[in-house]
Amino acid sequence: MVLKLYYDLMSQPSRAMFILLNKSDIQFVQCPVALHKGEHLTEKYKNDVSRFRKVPVIDHDGYKLTESIAMLRYLAREKELPDNFYPNDSKKQARVDEFLEWQHNNLRLACSMYFQLKFLIPKMTGNESDEDMVILFESRMLDALEQMESLWLQEKDFINGEQISAADIWAACEIEQPRMAGYEPREGRPKLKAWLDRVRDATNPYYDQAHVILNKVVKKAHGIQSNL
Amino acid sequence: MVLKLYYDLMSQPSRAMFILLNKSDIQFVQCPVALHKGEHLTEKYKNDVSRFRKVPVIDHDGYKLTESIAMLRYLAREKELPDNFYPNDSKKQARVDEFLEWQHNNLRLACSMYFQLKFLIPKMTGNESDEDMVILFESRMLDALEQMESLWLQEKDFINGEQISAADIWAACEIEQPRMAGYEPREGRPKLKAWLDRVRDATNPYYDQAHVILNKVVKKAHGIQSNL
Repeated sequence: MVLKLYYDLMSQPSRAMFILLNKSDIQFVQCPVALHKGEHLTEKYKNDVSRFRKVPVIDHDGYKLTESIAMLRYLAREKELPDNFYPNDSKKQARVDEFLEWQHNNLRLACSMYFQLKFLIPKMTGNESDEDMVILFESRMLDALEQMESLWLQEKDFINGEQISAADIWAACEIEQPRMAGYEPREGRPKLKAWLDRVRDATNPYYDQAHVILNKVVKKAHGIQSNL
Repeated sequence: MVLKLYYDLMSQPSRAMFILLNKSDIQFVQCPVALHKGEHLTEKYKNDVSRFRKVPVIDHDGYKLTESIAMLRYLAREKELPDNFYPNDSKKQARVDEFLEWQHNNLRLACSMYFQLKFLIPKMTGNESDEDMVILFESRMLDALEQMESLWLQEKDFINGEQISAADIWAACEIEQPRMAGYEPREGRPKLKAWLDRVRDATNPYYDQAHVILNKVVKKAHGIQSNL
C-alpha cells in the first residue's frame, strides 16, 4: 500500500502532517506542491489529486483524502502511530479531538488570516490590506494565544498532559505562521515559549526540517535569524 | 451512566447534538442553557460545566467534553449510533470527517458571522455592524453554499452518498442559521433545498423540534412563516 503526501511546507497543516508521518516512521512518497506557483489550482491537480485544490492531501493506494485532521484520524486507524499522538483510550482521544476542533475557528483562523493580511496579500498584490481587518484578526490571534496558555496548557507540559499529542503538533505549526508577518508569538509569553521548545524537542529533527523554509522567509523579510 | 447535554437551540451545534442524540435513541438529561441571559458566562458554569463557557457540552458520568464534533466521535465509541451517522468503515468514516473538518472555516464561520453581524450584534447593541465586514462574510457564505452544491452534494442524495450522516446534520444546522438574519439559503438553490428537505425528513420530528425557536425568530423578525 503506497501512501503519498501532497504538501507545501508553507502550509501549516502540511507541516503538521510532515512531522507526524516522519516522527511515526510511516513510509510515504513526498509529493511537493508549489502553492506560490499555483500548482494546486490546475485542472490536473483538481482532477488527479483534490477537487478542493488544497494541500495537504494523502493518496493511500488510490484513496484520496483532504483535511489534515481527517487524515490524522484515518492514519491512526490504518497505520501504526505512537499511541500518545492520537490515543486509543476513548477519553484521552476525545481530549485531543476537543483541541483539534477548537483550533479551527480560533488559532488557525486568526494566525492564518493575520499572516495572509499582513504578509501574503501585500506581497502578492503590492497593496496593504485593510487596516480594520488586520486589527480584527490580530485581536483574535492575541485572544487565541492567551487561551493557549490559560485554557489549554495551564500548568501542563503538553496540551494533553505529560506527553505530546497531535494537538501540540497542529497547534505549534499554526503558531509559527505569523512569524513570517513579523509577529513573534514567543515574546512576552514564557509559558508558550517553553511549550514550543518542548514540542520542537519531542519532534526533531522533523520540526526543524518542516520549518526550514518558514525560518528562511522570517530571516529574509524581517532580518531575524531564528535561534530555533 | 448518566449523559447530560448542556445546550441552547439558538446554537447550531447544539441543535445538531439534540437531533443526533434523539434520532439515535440515546437517553440523555436535557440541561438548557440560556445564552441570551448569559448563563454560560457565570463562574458556576465555568467551574461546573465548561471552562470554555460554550454550548454544547456533554457530561458523561462526570466526564465533561466541549466541541460538538469531538462529542460526536466520543459518543460513536461509547454509545450505539446508527452506523450511517458515523460509519465504522474506515474510509467512509474519513469522508464524514473530511466534511466536518472542512465546514469549520467555511460554512460555520461564514453563516455564523453573517448571523451575528446582520442580526445578533445590531439587536444586542442597537448599532448596525460595519458594512465591509457584513460584505466580507456574506461573500464567504455565498461561496460556502456554492461549494455545498458543487463540491459536496454534487448529484448525491446526501454528503456521504445514499444515506444521511452526521455531516448532513451539522451542515443543515449551520445553513438554517442565517435565516434569522433574513437570508433564505434555499432561494435560487433547488439542489440545496431538496437536500435540506431530505435531511429534515430523515431526522424528523427532531429536526423540527430543534428548529422551533429559530423558526419563531424568523417569523417575528422577518414576517416569514416557515413552510417547513
